[in-house]
Amino acid sequence: MNLRDYIREIQDFPKEGISYKDISPMLQDPKAMDHAVSLFIERLESQHIDVVVGIESRGFFFAPLLAQKLNAGFVPVRKKGKLPAETLEENYDLEYGIDVLEIHKDAISKGQNVLVHDDVLATGGTARAACNLVERLGGKVVQCNFIIELGFLNGRKKLSQFPVESLIQY
Amino acid sequence: MNLRDYIREIQDFPKEGISYKDISPMLQDPKAMDHAVSLFIERLESQHIDVVVGIESRGFFFAPLLAQKLNAGFVPVRKKGKLPAETLEENYDLEYGIDVLEIHKDAISKGQNVLVHDDVLATGGTARAACNLVERLGGKVVQCNFIIELGFLNGRKKLSQFPVESLIQY
Repeated sequence: MNLRDYIREIQDFPKEGISYKDISPMLQDPKAMDHAVSLFIERLESQHIDVVVGIESRGFFFAPLLAQKLNAGFVPVRKKGKLPAETLEENYDLEYGIDVLEIHKDAISKGQNVLVHDDVLATGGTARAACNLVERLGGKVVQCNFIIELGFLNGRKKLSQFPVESLIQY
Repeated sequence: MNLRDYIREIQDFPKEGISYKDISPMLQDPKAMDHAVSLFIERLESQHIDVVVGIESRGFFFAPLLAQKLNAGFVPVRKKGKLPAETLEENYDLEYGIDVLEIHKDAISKGQNVLVHDDVLATGGTARAACNLVERLGGKVVQCNFIIELGFLNGRKKLSQFPVESLIQY
């Protein structure tokens, strides 16, 4: 199975000139979902994971599946104002301005092994902010993984201190 | 295992006077997650499901897990402007004003059996809008299920033409 067959490109989304990589065909096919999860697990090479962090919103599609397979907890990292209990915040740069990600302060304990997941690695700013939150809580980022990596945006550079895996590269 | 033990109440979120039911403790415990998924599957009583629809954003935590267990596809229903391909829209009432949910037009085929999932059943407006989208695409809503039901908000009334299941009632 070639997972690339389960990605479709949508022209001019979210704005003109961008060819958006849409994972909807993968989500709609349970065999493709299973295959993606298996590949993610393989790439972890049996490292122990306590917590899988998923980044809002499309990171939530696979992070709970990975957590279940790894017998780990699932922790969402969310946009500002969405998490109800006490949070840590981390800013990250957008094309214009900044945005804020949050994590619950009690979501990760010192010394826990954490896998950080999102659907797409673009510039790496969001994933880097999520990794910073994990580290500020004392967790160890064992790996960051992504379904899709947009290599031309050089996101790995921003994540250079962490192991990075992606299933499909453009 | 009593799933209620994995819900914590956060006072005055999202605004004063509201006691928010936070499922974070459940998400962080893989045994509790597994148990919730098993209960959801039991309540379906072996009905065949082709597609599990999850409602943005917290409906995304469990919908892919349910889809995997049911060997079904997963389809997200999202807020306006988030889905890249052609969509159908449905309005729903908020306390002040209206909001819009969208589904990809090609996400569901005529005659498919659909399970609609969200984390919380409150007034039922969001779930009803999601069910309307499913029906407009020709799908059959076999069941709507929720982790938590806020019974005092009477959400079942808005979903009266659909079977509704919830794991924890307040």
